[in-house]
Amino acid sequence: MFRYGMLGFIPLAVALEVFHAPAVWVFVVSALALLPLAGWMGQATEELAARAGSTVGGLLNATFGNAAELIIATVALLAGKIEIVKASITGSILSNLLLVLGLSVFLGGLRYLRQNFNAHAAGLSASLLTLTLIAFMLPTFFDLAERNFFNVPDPTLPDELFSLATAGVLILIYLANVYFTLRTHKDLVSGLDEAHPEEHPATWSVPVAVGVLAAATVGVAVMAEFLVGSLEAATEVLGLSEFFVGIILIPLVGNAAEHFAAVVFAMKNKMDLAVQIAVGSSLQIALLVAPILVLVGYFAGRPMDLVFHNPLELAALAASILATNAVVRDGESNWLEGFLLLGVYALLGFAFFFTPR
Amino acid sequence: MFRYGMLGFIPLAVALEVFHAPAVWVFVVSALALLPLAGWMGQATEELAARAGSTVGGLLNATFGNAAELIIATVALLAGKIEIVKASITGSILSNLLLVLGLSVFLGGLRYLRQNFNAHAAGLSASLLTLTLIAFMLPTFFDLAERNFFNVPDPTLPDELFSLATAGVLILIYLANVYFTLRTHKDLVSGLDEAHPEEHPATWSVPVAVGVLAAATVGVAVMAEFLVGSLEAATEVLGLSEFFVGIILIPLVGNAAEHFAAVVFAMKNKMDLAVQIAVGSSLQIALLVAPILVLVGYFAGRPMDLVFHNPLELAALAASILATNAVVRDGESNWLEGFLLLGVYALLGFAFFFTPR
Amino acid sequence: MFRYGMLGFIPLAVALEVFHAPAVWVFVVSALALLPLAGWMGQATEELAARAGSTVGGLLNATFGNAAELIIATVALLAGKIEIVKASITGSILSNLLLVLGLSVFLGGLRYLRQNFNAHAAGLSASLLTLTLIAFMLPTFFDLAERNFFNVPDPTLPDELFSLATAGVLILIYLANVYFTLRTHKDLVSGLDEAHPEEHPATWSVPVAVGVLAAATVGVAVMAEFLVGSLEAATEVLGLSEFFVGIILIPLVGNAAEHFAAVVFAMKNKMDLAVQIAVGSSLQIALLVAPILVLVGYFAGRPMDLVFHNPLELAALAASILATNAVVRDGESNWLEGFLLLGVYALLGFAFFFTPR
Repeated sequence: MFRYGMLGFIPLAVALEVFHAPAVWVFVVSALALLPLAGWMGQATEELAARAGSTVGGLLNATFGNAAELIIATVALLAGKIEIVKASITGSILSNLLLVLGLSVFLGGLRYLRQNFNAHAAGLSASLLTLTLIAFMLPTFFDLAERNFFNVPDPTLPDELFSLATAGVLILIYLANVYFTLRTHKDLVSGLDEAHPEEHPATWSVPVAVGVLAAATVGVAVMAEFLVGSLEAATEVLGLSEFFVGIILIPLVGNAAEHFAAVVFAMKNKMDLAVQIAVGSSLQIALLVAPILVLVGYFAGRPMDLVFHNPLELAALAASILATNAVVRDGESNWLEGFLLLGVYALLGFAFFFTPR
Repeated sequence: MFRYGMLGFIPLAVALEVFHAPAVWVFVVSALALLPLAGWMGQATEELAARAGSTVGGLLNATFGNAAELIIATVALLAGKIEIVKASITGSILSNLLLVLGLSVFLGGLRYLRQNFNAHAAGLSASLLTLTLIAFMLPTFFDLAERNFFNVPDPTLPDELFSLATAGVLILIYLANVYFTLRTHKDLVSGLDEAHPEEHPATWSVPVAVGVLAAATVGVAVMAEFLVGSLEAATEVLGLSEFFVGIILIPLVGNAAEHFAAVVFAMKNKMDLAVQIAVGSSLQIALLVAPILVLVGYFAGRPMDLVFHNPLELAALAASILATNAVVRDGESNWLEGFLLLGVYALLGFAFFFTPR
Repeated sequence: MFRYGMLGFIPLAVALEVFHAPAVWVFVVSALALLPLAGWMGQATEELAARAGSTVGGLLNATFGNAAELIIATVALLAGKIEIVKASITGSILSNLLLVLGLSVFLGGLRYLRQNFNAHAAGLSASLLTLTLIAFMLPTFFDLAERNFFNVPDPTLPDELFSLATAGVLILIYLANVYFTLRTHKDLVSGLDEAHPEEHPATWSVPVAVGVLAAATVGVAVMAEFLVGSLEAATEVLGLSEFFVGIILIPLVGNAAEHFAAVVFAMKNKMDLAVQIAVGSSLQIALLVAPILVLVGYFAGRPMDLVFHNPLELAALAASILATNAVVRDGESNWLEGFLLLGVYALLGFAFFFTPR
């Protein structure tokens, strides 16, 4: 019901844009319009997945799970807002790991003294997160070495080449992980697949699902244009830094659906699913969305490297991955561990809030 | 017996101070006088705790366990010796993690082939240490970002604001941990509470304990004044750097009681208690003493941020937490692991010893 | 058979050197000649070890296991090629951890769904790797602190002193680990010792083994002279950076025997041995070869500190140790984990390849 009502934001956003309303209004309303659209995209994907059987379904989920984020970031990238795109990648990873997972573990832990989840799957996720941290750290250290050690005055080209190579490796790891999860080691993540259909049985026919997916995709693309177009003016009026908007605010909106779903699962003591949504979504951003953006940027003449010039951004990524690994690795959780994750999120939120505009 | 004898250092320190003896003498004698005083404070707290029942008693221990350190640091802070205060916080954490825990694990391991401790409690401690590392890393990266990325010429104010916010988050985490340990998950740390009374049954009446606590607190405060007042001149004469004194020497004195107690427990194969003393004390410094000092400094007009300008200091903190996590997380120890911790302590000791005066 | 044929490279290298052939030829042929020589040294050591009983044998293996690497590095050090020596230490550690272990885990995992190894031994290895990371990080942070915080214009002397102290601590840890493994906690690494004799029963008489060891040692030393002498000219002609050669190419040649042996064990599902070869060899480089080189350099008037001026080198070390710890700590492996290690190796390979010449 609620989600149908929110669709009203779409025509409102169009009207505001057409009549040149103040940027803040366009920004806020198009952000709100993205909430139901991202929800529809996700639901349509899941409906198709539920009909497709576990392997193809898993593949669909693995590929289109963060399609809305990918579209928004692509629009921003093509508009040349490269720093915002990088910030929203970082932000998406850390809001999933700290806020979505933190809330799930905390709220689930208030209800259940101790919650368990598949330690093997969690261990593998932790290893993949460690790889993510390494892959996102190296381009920055590469840039640092070029500048300060080899005294290369402008390492733009080698930075781009190395980031392209990194993107290639990340996509290979992503594909390997999909093959591992859906083929060779299905059993490792069992319990997840079975639980999904119970929660979301297929109710839409295939044409309906495809139609909804197509319409929502177009909607997301249009709203993303409005959002990106109004971003700069809006942040200035609101007195917020681009980093705070990219790292904290946009992912808050973009991951609203994940938040809700993960918390609901956690409160039903289905921690495997909650962890899977939060960590899986982060990994999808890191191993698929980010490298696709690097490739798209390269071929569209808007090259984006993976160098983080703001040291706080890399520290935030490292902090969120270290904290998640500490909490997740043993396959057990309690409310205090959720509180810790939320504490790290609060620390990062303050850091980016106090950052200059 | 021995401790009664050491009380003689108190009048001696007063005499030296009154007759303007050389600073080195005042420094050494007031440091020695602090040993029995810190011991009395600890014992009086435990006597009160033993009478108060496990929850209030645990709360008392959790709050006043490092009261002597807090008083010394507050005196130094109010005297404007901010770098020494920060150094002594770092030093207290790493001497507890590497020297106290290292000696306990090593000496205990010489007697028992393999020693076990509660893996759940150890895992939680490791997570809290990881949070500590993150919280102590972020202000420095924030400062770095301000200076080098945002080109803020003087980030004193934002550094202070962010450090205040960090202090707030740390205190919340501390309170959450106390609530977790004493209320919702008492069972997780069981074995600890029960073992304590056996070791230290209440023998003092409440008025005696309160009286000893009050007298020792006054004594600590006075000796701390002498110690801080003679510090600068003494380190110069001794040819030691302020960092070496703050990070290695002062915590060696301040944690003498912890060393002794933890090693004794380890050699009785009560590793849970030994780990609890070493790691618990570090966490209390990080999550309670450090943030209180930030708040006290702010309201007393001596603002102290949590930025570490000496890169070695942050590296030392990271090293001690990484090493402790590696050793502690599996709930098992042997002498080689203790030797490793002592090895890391030796490395850090050399590093700060070779540092310029 | 094959290895006998490769001995032909030795006279060929001598001929090329004597007739002043182009440096690239000398470089390539002497590198190829080192392969069988390092193999003979290793085999002769193992033959002696097999005859000597498990303790002395273990000691022999622990001491001479990386003798070929030590000789090559010493020759380079005495020739003043200090940066190449440091790079080859880093490279040897990361090629063992990422390439040797990665290939073993990957190829073993293609054959067996899940492979297990002694989690206690793996946990201890992970702790020793963490110590290695700390010990190799601190000199660089020490140098950074000297330069940027204490404003020491030329910290060469304190850097050397601290590196000497670090070398001393590392050798102590090495000896402690040998004592732990061969004496106090033999049982912890059981399964390894027993498996070795089965694989390599002693077939040579002691005089033959000693003779082969002596001859191969001389051969390695001569070929190392040729290799080091032709290195600079060869890398220039090949258009490769010194870092790429030192970190990627030389260890590829130097560890060829380890690669082969570890992969063979992994494919026979003897993961304990595969992990032991890869991780044990890294630890031997870090805890024995590197500190010996620091001491040799100091007494030979070619002081080598352990400061890494290229930030990428330290990042590479951190990345390889973090990734290995993530994969190894739980005592279980699958092909995806091997793929991850190989992915990290590929990332580092690209990074050093794109580095300026």
